[in-house]
Amino acid sequence: MRPSGRNLNEMRKVTIETGVTKHAEGSCLIKVGDTHVLCTATIEDRAPSFLKNTGLGWVTAEYGMLPRATHSRTRREAAAGKQGGRTVEIQRLIGRALRAGLDRSALGERQIVIDCDVIQADGGTRCASITGGWVALRLATNKLLAKGIITSDPLIDHVAAVSCGIYAGQNVCDLDYAEDSEAGVDGNFIMTGKGKLIEVQMSAEGSTYTRDQMNQLMDLAESGIAELVAAQKDAIG
Amino acid sequence: MRPSGRNLNEMRKVTIETGVTKHAEGSCLIKVGDTHVLCTATIEDRAPSFLKNTGLGWVTAEYGMLPRATHSRTRREAAAGKQGGRTVEIQRLIGRALRAGLDRSALGERQIVIDCDVIQADGGTRCASITGGWVALRLATNKLLAKGIITSDPLIDHVAAVSCGIYAGQNVCDLDYAEDSEAGVDGNFIMTGKGKLIEVQMSAEGSTYTRDQMNQLMDLAESGIAELVAAQKDAIG
Amino acid sequence: MRPSGRNLNEMRKVTIETGVTKHAEGSCLIKVGDTHVLCTATIEDRAPSFLKNTGLGWVTAEYGMLPRATHSRTRREAAAGKQGGRTVEIQRLIGRALRAGLDRSALGERQIVIDCDVIQADGGTRCASITGGWVALRLATNKLLAKGIITSDPLIDHVAAVSCGIYAGQNVCDLDYAEDSEAGVDGNFIMTGKGKLIEVQMSAEGSTYTRDQMNQLMDLAESGIAELVAAQKDAIG
Amino acid sequence: MRPSGRNLNEMRKVTIETGVTKHAEGSCLIKVGDTHVLCTATIEDRAPSFLKNTGLGWVTAEYGMLPRATHSRTRREAAAGKQGGRTVEIQRLIGRALRAGLDRSALGERQIVIDCDVIQADGGTRCASITGGWVALRLATNKLLAKGIITSDPLIDHVAAVSCGIYAGQNVCDLDYAEDSEAGVDGNFIMTGKGKLIEVQMSAEGSTYTRDQMNQLMDLAESGIAELVAAQKDAIG
Amino acid sequence: MRPSGRNLNEMRKVTIETGVTKHAEGSCLIKVGDTHVLCTATIEDRAPSFLKNTGLGWVTAEYGMLPRATHSRTRREAAAGKQGGRTVEIQRLIGRALRAGLDRSALGERQIVIDCDVIQADGGTRCASITGGWVALRLATNKLLAKGIITSDPLIDHVAAVSCGIYAGQNVCDLDYAEDSEAGVDGNFIMTGKGKLIEVQMSAEGSTYTRDQMNQLMDLAESGIAELVAAQKDAIG
Amino acid sequence: MRPSGRNLNEMRKVTIETGVTKHAEGSCLIKVGDTHVLCTATIEDRAPSFLKNTGLGWVTAEYGMLPRATHSRTRREAAAGKQGGRTVEIQRLIGRALRAGLDRSALGERQIVIDCDVIQADGGTRCASITGGWVALRLATNKLLAKGIITSDPLIDHVAAVSCGIYAGQNVCDLDYAEDSEAGVDGNFIMTGKGKLIEVQMSAEGSTYTRDQMNQLMDLAESGIAELVAAQKDAIG
Repeated sequence: MRPSGRNLNEMRKVTIETGVTKHAEGSCLIKVGDTHVLCTATIEDRAPSFLKNTGLGWVTAEYGMLPRATHSRTRREAAAGKQGGRTVEIQRLIGRALRAGLDRSALGERQIVIDCDVIQADGGTRCASITGGWVALRLATNKLLAKGIITSDPLIDHVAAVSCGIYAGQNVCDLDYAEDSEAGVDGNFIMTGKGKLIEVQMSAEGSTYTRDQMNQLMDLAESGIAELVAAQKDAIG
Repeated sequence: MRPSGRNLNEMRKVTIETGVTKHAEGSCLIKVGDTHVLCTATIEDRAPSFLKNTGLGWVTAEYGMLPRATHSRTRREAAAGKQGGRTVEIQRLIGRALRAGLDRSALGERQIVIDCDVIQADGGTRCASITGGWVALRLATNKLLAKGIITSDPLIDHVAAVSCGIYAGQNVCDLDYAEDSEAGVDGNFIMTGKGKLIEVQMSAEGSTYTRDQMNQLMDLAESGIAELVAAQKDAIG
Repeated sequence: MRPSGRNLNEMRKVTIETGVTKHAEGSCLIKVGDTHVLCTATIEDRAPSFLKNTGLGWVTAEYGMLPRATHSRTRREAAAGKQGGRTVEIQRLIGRALRAGLDRSALGERQIVIDCDVIQADGGTRCASITGGWVALRLATNKLLAKGIITSDPLIDHVAAVSCGIYAGQNVCDLDYAEDSEAGVDGNFIMTGKGKLIEVQMSAEGSTYTRDQMNQLMDLAESGIAELVAAQKDAIG
Repeated sequence: MRPSGRNLNEMRKVTIETGVTKHAEGSCLIKVGDTHVLCTATIEDRAPSFLKNTGLGWVTAEYGMLPRATHSRTRREAAAGKQGGRTVEIQRLIGRALRAGLDRSALGERQIVIDCDVIQADGGTRCASITGGWVALRLATNKLLAKGIITSDPLIDHVAAVSCGIYAGQNVCDLDYAEDSEAGVDGNFIMTGKGKLIEVQMSAEGSTYTRDQMNQLMDLAESGIAELVAAQKDAIG
Repeated sequence: MRPSGRNLNEMRKVTIETGVTKHAEGSCLIKVGDTHVLCTATIEDRAPSFLKNTGLGWVTAEYGMLPRATHSRTRREAAAGKQGGRTVEIQRLIGRALRAGLDRSALGERQIVIDCDVIQADGGTRCASITGGWVALRLATNKLLAKGIITSDPLIDHVAAVSCGIYAGQNVCDLDYAEDSEAGVDGNFIMTGKGKLIEVQMSAEGSTYTRDQMNQLMDLAESGIAELVAAQKDAIG
Repeated sequence: MRPSGRNLNEMRKVTIETGVTKHAEGSCLIKVGDTHVLCTATIEDRAPSFLKNTGLGWVTAEYGMLPRATHSRTRREAAAGKQGGRTVEIQRLIGRALRAGLDRSALGERQIVIDCDVIQADGGTRCASITGGWVALRLATNKLLAKGIITSDPLIDHVAAVSCGIYAGQNVCDLDYAEDSEAGVDGNFIMTGKGKLIEVQMSAEGSTYTRDQMNQLMDLAESGIAELVAAQKDAIG
């Protein structure tokens, strides 16, 4: 029995509300159960300097968490004077994931920055950031296409992510915080709309796992990601 | 004519939605026109060390702005490695303002941290933070009272704030960004529910003003703050 | 009775010695009672980048305190690795105040940096910094005029500042440290030589005040600032 | 054809020299081809504070790279004033990997710090750090056992790591820098001596992959890790 | 011919004014020509933790330079967010020098912090800091003796410092900035009142020197330091 | 009797192995007894900006210590977020020393960076860094000469360094850690191959010394440096 009463392969309820901030070129508020992340896309006219004169574009991401997104208050990273290791790791992952679905040549020499800010956390914030971040990216690139600034679509496919793990001896999909903090083995699975893999990060804390278990979790992830992609399609209309 | 078409003494529409995050002891999302600030209150069992064995409590505040709360993207302070001067100044102001309405002895040796995070900015974010921050503080202290952890109310009165200034030669109430960026003189006025003053910060950028003009702006501020206090009362029921 | 034995409206003795350091384009040591601040002005050939090609100049300020300017030793900010919130707030205030008396177009695209370093502190260091900083600025702009680098005077009027507050139930002018640390209400008042207001920052710590009280303090401030402006005139000859 | 002329499933030559520094409780210099990493283990009498009174121990890791370990000089992180995102990510991975093979209760309330410093880099430094770090950890725990400070072995099994990827359309084992910088898909595989999985991190940069491809790379990794475990056994005698 | 017209072995005029700040336990303003350094001594009740329960005391120093102490403005280290290498090197030297003349057992488990802040710089600021810092230390220890907090004098002898170098092919004493910036060889010599050596730092920038030249500079230094010690004696009365 | 059993004037065994890392333009591992330092030279096409259009080159140095180079583990400076005062002092010394033997005009407008990383420490790491750093510099400049990038040799002479001090009342050459931590007086002596002096840093911690003692230590240093120069000659063949 899962703490939330969900079935083993059952995702939390997913909603994606777009256009939630008037300034950003693309934005959405994604809710995966009680995990709420605000994702915005900013189009910048210039690509990073290492791409100068290559004709290629870039997508990067930054991740943050409001201090009271968590059960007890987390120290504000701006006050601490640096981003923690976990933050850095997550934002590198989000950027890498979104670039895997990107035709950098179609984007041209510009950069899109995806900001993912966790308003409320209940497990799976990095996966929600990727899934919501893709929607913000989609909306921003739509704007570039609509204005004729670019002429071919730089997004090859949907990108979405889910975490699955072994909780209380059973394989479960879309771990919430209660499960995540107990699971000895869990993984983040990032895939395209067509089911191709982009990134798998599956780790054990004080434990190990077999290839069989890994394959079972990947089966769960595939069905979860199909649901997330459907929610993305609903959101962008 | 104001850019928004408002009358000179007309506030923007104010809404305060409470209970917006499940973890915080008190929370609200205050919207003053297009300025949206998420305010949360965290109760900590210990007061700062300078209050040890005094029996007195403390309220402090932290302020942040999501990178794309602004028209063009603002660099994330956590990435920059420090809070800017403007941020530090604002969060000190919020804390000082809320403490002015506090009976520190009734609160006892504990601290309440008010986090004000700007989701969307359109001028007046520090005033909205104070007005919303007081609601979060009210809800958190209500919880302490309801649980019997404290027995007399530590909040003496409402605390709310509004900015007024001289825009295009005319005194206007509740400046939005379009007005704020043009006004040569503007002030932030913080008052209690009974109309007592807590803080006045009135400055001229490349300009000066007279005591008459100051008094006229204070008249505008008094009426604006009365509206904000009414909105606070609605919100806390 | 004030700790210093002064009358309620009595300023401390003010002296301003100019030319105290041979390198700076303008300098003075201002003493307001036991508060001693060394103010220097540095002329830089370039304005900040946001003024590029505008023909406008800029005045900015930095503030520091020697570690043993205070009763017990204060940690050196350079060793702590950052400027504290109080320092940042004060130096922003000094710069804003001095710019209010500045004709930026007459200055042309250059910057003058005012450094205010507190040698000994006894309350009112930010006000002394503004009053002394203006003298350093005056001397530096005189040099620009004398050399024919600029041809019309960029300083519109004197700028000076004083703090007034409510100490032991009475309105007093020019608070020293003994009064400042006890006063529940105090304000910093910045005015021009002609008595126009530049900035008012009046705050209550754990208290409130009325508009009547505010007006009484402003009356005190006006007479105190007249004395400071007289001292500035003496200093610059 | 691989740049090095190796067969697709061929590891680089692996040597592990132990006892390379006289101060550390355990140390080795691991060479995987031209990638050379110095690994040291430091035993600390105290566990991190979050383990106080739990009876459990901890293993953590830090990673660094000498400035000229790389083809062109990399800026020294101590001079830059912070560890970069890549460094933080890698040292978190090393620590997590080594803890997966650890019986924290057998170790008792103490901490072992594994320092992995790259002397020369040619791809696969994080994998070499894990494989060599385990040897340093083994030697340090042997010392604790020999001295009778602990009585049962806290190391459950060997831990080793290898990277495999798709280079020029073919699955290859143990990527060197020339391959790594070109591979669109690559993964780091961490396993125990008995072939159980600890962590899989498989990512695509601007590309995707299938589950079939993932399984083929895992087959390669299994054989590579068997070689590494054999080298570890040789080293510890 | 020296730029200042001084003879080869001629010191600049030295004055040491004591009691220049009312808060410090000891203070002086030392002027060596146009080099002016404010030195203060702060007595702290506790020694650094590495001396706990040893009965021994400590003297440490911090060094700073006001931004406009120099010909062109130097960036404020507090704003830069760290003390530069030169600052760190100098303050370590001052502390080491003053400790060489200290009976740490007579001082007992307390610390005296010497702050040396350069008000105006014209070469030789580290030497002036040592010479003036010793006077501040002397005054502070006198206070401890007068109050009976310590009963035997912790200062064994005077400590003073001078720089000598080879300028335009000739050995000169007490280099000013004009000489210092041109000298290929120069040294800082720190001695006691009785002429014992504490520290010699003699370096060549893009040049070398012989033992003969070194001995000649040390002769110059001995006579210069005798003058400085006389000035110290005058100052402390 | 010295702890190591050496004679008073006896150096530790010195070996210098060149070509130890494949990427650097010059490299060596210098071992002075149990002190082991890896020195690499990196040639950069551009000189520092202050040399722009002067035709002159520059040599600079950075110094680091692996965390477990020391008896107990030293905190990693990259993790601490800054280089300590000792590190900064040492790397400035190394750079200054190597520049003293440099014909900057023959080097032309380029920079050579010498990285000295202590693998194992047993006293005298800064001296070993200078002696080994010169070898790395020699190899890198040889490469520039061999390629015809420069045509006249920018190295005027060998540069080497040794520490001597007074241990247990006797003058000893090449202090190891056991001696260094007890010596009240010690100095670092840097000389050229022809015996000219470059830098002398001789200090007393809680003690003093005479010119006679200084001269005796310099005699010891001269003979030690002759041995080091011979080892450098062997190494570069």
